[in-house]
Amino acid sequence: MTVVLTTDVTFGDCDPAGIVFYPNVFRWLDAAFHKLLRPLGGHHGICKELGSAGLGLVDAQAHFRSAIRDGDVLDVSVSIAEWSRRSVTLVYEGRVGTRLAFEAREVRCLFIRENGGIVAGDISGLRDKLEKTK
Amino acid sequence: MTVVLTTDVTFGDCDPAGIVFYPNVFRWLDAAFHKLLRPLGGHHGICKELGSAGLGLVDAQAHFRSAIRDGDVLDVSVSIAEWSRRSVTLVYEGRVGTRLAFEAREVRCLFIRENGGIVAGDISGLRDKLEKTK
Amino acid sequence: MTVVLTTDVTFGDCDPAGIVFYPNVFRWLDAAFHKLLRPLGGHHGICKELGSAGLGLVDAQAHFRSAIRDGDVLDVSVSIAEWSRRSVTLVYEGRVGTRLAFEAREVRCLFIRENGGIVAGDISGLRDKLEKTK
Amino acid sequence: MTVVLTTDVTFGDCDPAGIVFYPNVFRWLDAAFHKLLRPLGGHHGICKELGSAGLGLVDAQAHFRSAIRDGDVLDVSVSIAEWSRRSVTLVYEGRVGTRLAFEAREVRCLFIRENGGIVAGDISGLRDKLEKTK
Repeated sequence: MTVVLTTDVTFGDCDPAGIVFYPNVFRWLDAAFHKLLRPLGGHHGICKELGSAGLGLVDAQAHFRSAIRDGDVLDVSVSIAEWSRRSVTLVYEGRVGTRLAFEAREVRCLFIRENGGIVAGDISGLRDKLEKTK
Repeated sequence: MTVVLTTDVTFGDCDPAGIVFYPNVFRWLDAAFHKLLRPLGGHHGICKELGSAGLGLVDAQAHFRSAIRDGDVLDVSVSIAEWSRRSVTLVYEGRVGTRLAFEAREVRCLFIRENGGIVAGDISGLRDKLEKTK
Repeated sequence: MTVVLTTDVTFGDCDPAGIVFYPNVFRWLDAAFHKLLRPLGGHHGICKELGSAGLGLVDAQAHFRSAIRDGDVLDVSVSIAEWSRRSVTLVYEGRVGTRLAFEAREVRCLFIRENGGIVAGDISGLRDKLEKTK
Repeated sequence: MTVVLTTDVTFGDCDPAGIVFYPNVFRWLDAAFHKLLRPLGGHHGICKELGSAGLGLVDAQAHFRSAIRDGDVLDVSVSIAEWSRRSVTLVYEGRVGTRLAFEAREVRCLFIRENGGIVAGDISGLRDKLEKTK
């Protein structure tokens, strides 16, 4: 896995127990995913090119292994675990130095506007773009 | 399941795709859990009573079923699915009217300070308190 | 001033000092403003009708009077203090019961896309709509 | 002014108008302030040493000059504008490259627990520590 995001954990990321308020972990996963998209034109550019309303989530999970605190330097690494026709599964790891802080997983789709709602479209266009950049 | 939290979804909860930025869903799960604790003295009171550093997460997962948008009124319901000796599993559902927006799950522990770190302690004290309020 | 937003302050809104992390106060101001827009069609509907890219901020200020904590029920009231040709000034008050928690002020414009950027447009269309609903 | 914080602005920092949701600007001010404290022992260490409950806000203001968007690299600089006996005024600037995005100001106190509440205490202990690190 490649570290794609390093974040200085700050006071305001933490809760009254003095550890990171856990929804912020998902905020960092999302930020790491969007960094993957940056060299491809970013979320806006990719969606425009592929005719998509957004690269959204169908599932997200995190397993918290150790506490993250104010002042920690958190490295988030990501790799692509699996492609299906209409989704991609990303796996993440967060570490403070060598200590494992969390393991996580996101399943994302390429949403397409259809009949006034949004549905998961063919995701191969994103796959082609991501694999070309390797 | 009982609706414990109703939230007016607002503009700032949403991302450039116009739908809820997904870490906010976890923010609402956490808020719903803390509402369960309110009649028992709140997080601070309970932790003080049980000698705990916090009622933290070991795992969190959400399955997103339909998009939530600015102006939606979101009902979050919760029930306790399972107790183990050192953890409790909560299941959640989010609905906009009758439409299912997400299903989610949290596994929480009662963290105890030990040897300079925190470990999951015996959670039966919380169980007793929660079951007494039913 | 009219209370437009009541929020149950929760654990995750607070920082390691046990009081509300102050950017959340601005989040609640924004939510209160958007509730004013709700009966007029919401931000999206109004912007579409008035040809605007967004009702954004040029200035925001808060004066914090007393601490807000987990479990507090916060009432946010708002009134319109002043209209200029290209901006509106809103004043806010936050109270926990009768205790004053903050006083705040936002200056907002109706942004219009122009020459690849955004500029503050004539805001009288919003004024007409807001005054009609009184 | 010295740049103390550089942040990769991400998708989730932005709202449905595609620009940064403004409370996040205050989140970055707070993060920049806490970076100033890092070489002095961090917020927790300083408060312990000075017998304080927290270095909290009495006032915060931002003037927004230009839009910040997904993919922007934002530099936040800070300097200390003024010390009074019980408060310090910090001024901030946010830039994307050379473009000015915001100017801001925070007034902070060193809160002390007293009679069941918190009051602004003598801030000279913080001043001594900050001036020694220059």
